Amino acid sequence: MKTRDLKYQSNKLYMGKKSIEEVAKKLPTPFYLYSEKVIEDNFIEFQGEAIKAKIPRPLICYALKANSNKYILKKLKKLGAGADIVSGGELKRAIDVGISPKKIVFSGVGKTKEEITLALKHEIYSFNVESVDELRLINTLAKKSKRKARICFRLNPVVNPITHKYISTGDKTHKFGLLAPDIMSALEDKSLWTNSKLVGLSIHIGSQLLDLKATEKAIKNLATLALLIDKKLEFLDVGGGLGVDYHPDEKTNLPSIKAYMTLVGQTLKKNYFDKLKNSKTRVVFEPGRRIIAKSAVLVMRVIRKKITENTEFVIVDGGMNDFMRPSLYGAYHHLLPVVKTAKKKRLVNIVGPICESSDVFADKTLFQPLENEDLLLLNDVGAYGYSMTSNYNLRGKPAELVVKKDGTVKTLTPAQKFSELS
Amino acid sequence: MKTRDLKYQSNKLYMGKKSIEEVAKKLPTPFYLYSEKVIEDNFIEFQGEAIKAKIPRPLICYALKANSNKYILKKLKKLGAGADIVSGGELKRAIDVGISPKKIVFSGVGKTKEEITLALKHEIYSFNVESVDELRLINTLAKKSKRKARICFRLNPVVNPITHKYISTGDKTHKFGLLAPDIMSALEDKSLWTNSKLVGLSIHIGSQLLDLKATEKAIKNLATLALLIDKKLEFLDVGGGLGVDYHPDEKTNLPSIKAYMTLVGQTLKKNYFDKLKNSKTRVVFEPGRRIIAKSAVLVMRVIRKKITENTEFVIVDGGMNDFMRPSLYGAYHHLLPVVKTAKKKRLVNIVGPICESSDVFADKTLFQPLENEDLLLLNDVGAYGYSMTSNYNLRGKPAELVVKKDGTVKTLTPAQKFSELS
Repeated sequence: MKTRDLKYQSNKLYMGKKSIEEVAKKLPTPFYLYSEKVIEDNFIEFQGEAIKAKIPRPLICYALKANSNKYILKKLKKLGAGADIVSGGELKRAIDVGISPKKIVFSGVGKTKEEITLALKHEIYSFNVESVDELRLINTLAKKSKRKARICFRLNPVVNPITHKYISTGDKTHKFGLLAPDIMSALEDKSLWTNSKLVGLSIHIGSQLLDLKATEKAIKNLATLALLIDKKLEFLDVGGGLGVDYHPDEKTNLPSIKAYMTLVGQTLKKNYFDKLKNSKTRVVFEPGRRIIAKSAVLVMRVIRKKITENTEFVIVDGGMNDFMRPSLYGAYHHLLPVVKTAKKKRLVNIVGPICESSDVFADKTLFQPLENEDLLLLNDVGAYGYSMTSNYNLRGKPAELVVKKDGTVKTLTPAQKFSELS
Repeated sequence: MKTRDLKYQSNKLYMGKKSIEEVAKKLPTPFYLYSEKVIEDNFIEFQGEAIKAKIPRPLICYALKANSNKYILKKLKKLGAGADIVSGGELKRAIDVGISPKKIVFSGVGKTKEEITLALKHEIYSFNVESVDELRLINTLAKKSKRKARICFRLNPVVNPITHKYISTGDKTHKFGLLAPDIMSALEDKSLWTNSKLVGLSIHIGSQLLDLKATEKAIKNLATLALLIDKKLEFLDVGGGLGVDYHPDEKTNLPSIKAYMTLVGQTLKKNYFDKLKNSKTRVVFEPGRRIIAKSAVLVMRVIRKKITENTEFVIVDGGMNDFMRPSLYGAYHHLLPVVKTAKKKRLVNIVGPICESSDVFADKTLFQPLENEDLLLLNDVGAYGYSMTSNYNLRGKPAELVVKKDGTVKTLTPAQKFSELS
């Protein structure tokens, strides 16, 4: 996987050719800064490795829930990305940036009438159906609008990947997907299919997966069921969830995109494609985090320091409303100084300004001495960063900027001033 | 404490005289519904019990971070409330609704230059200072604007209340407050006081406190330091944090407002007021949750059901973006049907539509059988509810409505449609 586009030159941190200190001079902190290069490189690598692994006709549906910034979506769209969406808002966003409905898959357990109707109108590639009740509603609404809904069942593959319990989704105690026997009996029920057509099968076993055994098992289960159904499926959707090394220590375990694609390719070949003649089935992927997480940093400034007995707190101007993952999941994100010094590192707590003890970015970490107004950044915040921001404590949301491939910086979303909060 | 203003009549749930089913007929779900009566009753009880407990000149500064809805703030202001704020946005909001700056205290570890400057301009009642560095900045900015800043030290009382680790704030490993020796030496440093004046001392040991022992100890420490400082302090601020019985089982342990006020009054009398002649010191309170939590419900609708082996999932249209506390803190909130049936209860999981396994409102709970389109509600969502909403999954934010004391329903904030998300 591509490294981040960050490096120190004369002790100053650059994203591509852009000094982050220079960018921050013109802007209030905190702000998100994305690397267009990393986003594109990651997508190209993902697509390229799928082709190298001889995956048949891969379609890469980027998962908007990770980050639905319009500029980013337009870039991905140009590279051929489709969209994995989970709401009417995401459907509208995908359409707005020009992603073809023929490349849109609609996931999620709670699709509403309004959302399904909109998706039918756009004739999306597939409804990834999570329950029989949902299929019944889709079929009814398709009948009403005289359309044929394209259906993919999300199989619950009954595997238990190693990840955070909040983002694991493939066990049978979770709300996601259908068990194989339930899919089989839904197929028997003709009333569900008057205006619906089964075109695919999918799995998604969770996010931030760090080993591939569960993935292999899940794909095998997917392939077995696909053969059992014995229909000419247009696609198999292997979901997303490939992990990212947020913490330096995770690197050794992290599967590369190459290793992942090799596994997907071989498992599908052996268990599916080799058993069919002239299969036209294509393979759909739903990556989000792996494409976008490492493309961005959250640039923050030290408001002040506070020393209490043996504890040094560094209070920064970014808070849990700007980036929720540490509070919500206990997620680790690496902190880096924007200007590196040779001074001896100190044990500090780096915390935000929000009135909650959970508003902490680093609990007892070794960091170079920091002074008021110093800049630092939280790394790998591209996924589930801006998309989870709030106005908690009546704080305005941070800006989003991108370092373009030509080296210029563009504001994607202006900072929301607190004076604008009505 | 006042009960919620909810009751069943002919099996239909009413807030005051208003049938929640009737309100929901005209509106998309989910939406927040507040009881004006409960909010006002809670505030009046809080104020009344302070007076009954002979607390000298109580000033009740409502904590905006719990809920900063303008309509609610205006109601509280009319009843005499001041404001406990933690950001420039909250300062502006408090001023906008007409709360006198003479009743505004500014808490928080991360006050910025811009925020301090604005607060100095408004001549607020007090900066509740959390570090020496902060005091230095306030003094410098006050000098620049030729003003005198009114300062209150937030004492870290070094107690460890029983509550969730995320909302406990009075231990010395937390980022909040100053230790007594640090306060004493800051008082010696004349350079900090050229444009600042010490007017108060405060404590705040966390939120959702369920027993009063830690509170008593903290107030004793506050009183001891106040006497030691030997200045004529204008006020002692005992903070907020009084708990709420979210779960039916918590009721037995929950201190009443009366018990709390009695404790505060007696502890301060014995340890502070009895030791001074003709003290003019007043007592400041910073309640948030206790005033607002039980005033509101989040009304949701069943999208569909899903049965997997032995597990029945009920998928509702409210999600973690609409109400974050269950995901973020693992908080319990009681669920109630809007129309009660006599049918036998079933073991179900009640979950939201968001693509995360954390989007769960009840994990294995006994609930009456629910069908598609049925209404249910999440109780006690007035505090840290709407204030933490986000657009995660590109979902619009829910509406906020209030049942007024005259029985009419007023929309406070319209629902944000997903089509409006630009």
